[in-house]
Amino acid sequence: MALKSFIDVHPDSHFPIQNLPYGVFKPQPSSPPRPAVAIGDYVLDLSEIALAGLFDGPILKGSDCFLQLNLNKFVAMGRPAWKEARATLQKLLSSTEPTLRDNASLRQKSLVLMSKVELLVPIAIGDYTDFFSSMHHAKNCGTIFRGPQNPIPANWFHLPIAYHGRASSIVISGTDIVRPRGQGHPTGNSPPYFGPSMKLDFELEMAAVVGPGNELGKPVDVNEAGDHIFGLVLMNDWSARDIQAWEYVPLGPFLGKSFGTTISPWIVTLDALEPFACDAPKQDPQPLPYLAEKISKNYDISLEVQIKPTGQEDSTVVTRSNFKHLYWTLTQQLAHHTINGCNLRPGDLLGTGTISGPEPESYGCLLELTWNGQKPLSLNGATRKFLEDGDEVIFSGFSKGDGYNVGFGTCSGKILPSH
Amino acid sequence: MALKSFIDVHPDSHFPIQNLPYGVFKPQPSSPPRPAVAIGDYVLDLSEIALAGLFDGPILKGSDCFLQLNLNKFVAMGRPAWKEARATLQKLLSSTEPTLRDNASLRQKSLVLMSKVELLVPIAIGDYTDFFSSMHHAKNCGTIFRGPQNPIPANWFHLPIAYHGRASSIVISGTDIVRPRGQGHPTGNSPPYFGPSMKLDFELEMAAVVGPGNELGKPVDVNEAGDHIFGLVLMNDWSARDIQAWEYVPLGPFLGKSFGTTISPWIVTLDALEPFACDAPKQDPQPLPYLAEKISKNYDISLEVQIKPTGQEDSTVVTRSNFKHLYWTLTQQLAHHTINGCNLRPGDLLGTGTISGPEPESYGCLLELTWNGQKPLSLNGATRKFLEDGDEVIFSGFSKGDGYNVGFGTCSGKILPSH
Repeated sequence: MALKSFIDVHPDSHFPIQNLPYGVFKPQPSSPPRPAVAIGDYVLDLSEIALAGLFDGPILKGSDCFLQLNLNKFVAMGRPAWKEARATLQKLLSSTEPTLRDNASLRQKSLVLMSKVELLVPIAIGDYTDFFSSMHHAKNCGTIFRGPQNPIPANWFHLPIAYHGRASSIVISGTDIVRPRGQGHPTGNSPPYFGPSMKLDFELEMAAVVGPGNELGKPVDVNEAGDHIFGLVLMNDWSARDIQAWEYVPLGPFLGKSFGTTISPWIVTLDALEPFACDAPKQDPQPLPYLAEKISKNYDISLEVQIKPTGQEDSTVVTRSNFKHLYWTLTQQLAHHTINGCNLRPGDLLGTGTISGPEPESYGCLLELTWNGQKPLSLNGATRKFLEDGDEVIFSGFSKGDGYNVGFGTCSGKILPSH
Repeated sequence: MALKSFIDVHPDSHFPIQNLPYGVFKPQPSSPPRPAVAIGDYVLDLSEIALAGLFDGPILKGSDCFLQLNLNKFVAMGRPAWKEARATLQKLLSSTEPTLRDNASLRQKSLVLMSKVELLVPIAIGDYTDFFSSMHHAKNCGTIFRGPQNPIPANWFHLPIAYHGRASSIVISGTDIVRPRGQGHPTGNSPPYFGPSMKLDFELEMAAVVGPGNELGKPVDVNEAGDHIFGLVLMNDWSARDIQAWEYVPLGPFLGKSFGTTISPWIVTLDALEPFACDAPKQDPQPLPYLAEKISKNYDISLEVQIKPTGQEDSTVVTRSNFKHLYWTLTQQLAHHTINGCNLRPGDLLGTGTISGPEPESYGCLLELTWNGQKPLSLNGATRKFLEDGDEVIFSGFSKGDGYNVGFGTCSGKILPSH
C-alpha cells in the first residue's frame, strides 16, 4: 500500500508524503526564518521538530541544522543526512505513526497553513551559474540570431556552456519584477537608445541546489557529482532581449539578466525525484572522458508556463515542456563546472538554461515562441510579442507518480512598469 | 608640516599615516579574524582599538563594526563613518598624540608586526563583476583575435562592458594557483583536446569594493556612485586563454577565469586616494545621459607586474601601467551596473578589467605582451609565451605623494602544476 500521511493531502497536491520538499518560512512577518518541509496545504516547521528531539537518527540527533535561518548547513551535510531526515519525516508524518499525529500541542506548534506564511529564498546563494543545456533552445536562438546554417556553436556539443549569473537579484516566487531600463540598438550604425526594455521575456528553467561543495583546485568526478546535488527548484531567468543583444558581445549576458531571477520556494530533493529518473538523450559526439558518465540520467518532470495578461482574470498556457529534454545532465554540468578547479559551495545554484522541447508548443521563452516577435501569441483575446507591464508569468512543474504527484508548486512574478 | 606617525615608517613604505588601508588578519592561526589598518610594518588591530573605546566619534562610538570577522559591516556604513574612522585613526597614530603612543599595554595588544600575521580576504564577497574598461586592452585583444579592422566591438564606446565573475574562487595574495585543466581547440574542424591549460596568463587589474548597496529595482545615479565605493585593491584575474577561447562563444568567459582570482589584502580607501585624483580620458562619443558625470575622474596609481620565473632568484618587471589609463570610470561602471535595477551589496567586488596603457611596455597581460605567444618575453635568460609551473607573478601599485606613498602592497601568486 502506498505511503500515506495522517494529514489529508488532495490527490492533485504537489506535496504528498512522497515529496517533502524543503523550504524556509516566516510564521509572522516579524519572526526569524525557519526551515520547513511542505506537506499538503501545510508547512511542517522543522525547528519545532528538532526542538522536540524527533530527529533522533545518528547523524541529525543533536544537530542545530534546522535551527538556522536557511538550509545551507543542512544541505552541506550530504546525502546520508538527507536520507536520514527524509526517513524520519516520512515516518513522523505517516498515517500509522502516533508521535506527531496524536500530539495536539506539537501539531499546533509545528504545522502551519502554507497560505498563512511567508516563504523565503531558502538558501544563501554564494554563486549562481546558468547553463545552456537544451539543444532545442540553442538551435532556436542560433537560428533566430545567426540564421539556419550552423545555428549551434561548434563548442556546444563538446561542453555544457554556461555563464556566471548574478546572485544578489535572485528573488522568491511572487516577487514583482520591475521592467529594467537599459541600452538597446536598433540596427546598422544608428546610435544606441536608452529606455525601458521593449523585449522583456521569461525563460523556463530549473536549477540545482548544490549540497556539499569541493575545495578550490579539486574537481568533482562526474560519477560522484550526484552526491553534490541536494535538489531542484523552478527558475525564471527573466531576460531583456534588447539589452542582452546589444551588450553580450564579447563577454556574455550581463544587465539583460541581472535585474531579477525568480525561484520557486520548495527544493524538491533528488531522492524524491528518483522514481522519475529516465535515460538522458544519447550524446553524439561522445563527450570527453571527464564528462562520460557510467549512468547518464534525466528526470521526467512536466513543466508548464502560463501568462496572465494584464487586465485579464484568467491565465493561458503558453508552453508545455519537460526537464527530460535537456541534453547535458545535471551531473555533467557540475563536473564540468569544477574541472578547472573551481570550488562550489553549499547553496550555490546551477540553472539548466531554458528548457525547450522539440515542438513549437514546448519552447521555453517568448523569443522562441514568437520567433523574436515575428509571430505574436494569442492569449485569450490579447496578443503578445514580449511581456507587457502588469503581465504575470506562472511556471509549474511536477512528476506524475502512481496516485500522487511530486511537484514544485509554482514560480511566478508580475511585471511592474519602469520607475 | 606633513602628518607623521609615532610609528617609524620608511619613506618608501606603502603604508604611511596618509594611507591607513583596511584589511583583516589573524594574529595566530587559531585566532578569529580581526579588522585592521596597515601602518608601516605593522597592523593596527581595530578590535582592540574599539574595545579600548577609542572610536569615540558620533557614528562609531559603541559600534561593533570592528568586532566582526570581516569589513562588511563597516563598509556598509558609508562615507560619514569612513571619514570619522580615518580622522580617529590618523589622530591616534600621529606623533603628537599620546593616547596610544604612551600606552605601552595598548600598543602591545594592538600593534602587531605584519610579517608575523596571516592576512585574509577582508570582505565577504557576495557578487564579483569584472569590467573591460581599458580601451588599449580592448583594442589589443580585438586585433589579436579578429584582426586590425574594427578591433573594438561597436558597443564598447557606449557602455562599460562587463561580465559576472566567480566569487567563490577569489583568494588572498600569496595563495598558490593550481594550473587549470580544461578543453581547448586547435583549429578548424579538429575535435577539442583536454588537459592542463597551455596558455595560462595573468591580468593586471584593480577592483573596487562596494560600500553601501542599493535596493533591487533602484538604480544608483552616476553622480552619487562615488559614495557607494569604499576603496580599491589590486587584482590578478588569472586567465587560461586556450580554455577561454574555446568556451566563450556565446555566453562569455567561464572556466577560463573561475579557477582563481587573487586580490591584495589591503583596501585603500578613495579618501586616501583623493590627492591622486586626475581627469578621466575624454569620452567620444558622449556617453548617454545616465553615464554622463558632472565630474569624471580617475586616479594616478602606478602599477607594475613582475614575474619570478621558476628556478630563478630574481623577478623581472614585465609591465608598467597606470590606473589612469582606464576609459570608463569607477562611478560609470557602478552606475551602469545598477541602471537595470540590479542590486549591489556591501562587499561586492567590481574589477576594472585588464589595465593596459598605450605603449607595449604597459600592456597588462601576457596575451598582449607576447602578442598571443608570437613574441616571447625574455626574463633574465628565461623566455615566456605564457606562465609555466613554478612561476610567481607579483603585482604592486602606489600613488606618489610629497614625501610619502599611498600604496597597495603586493598581489602575488605562484603557479602549481595541475594535479
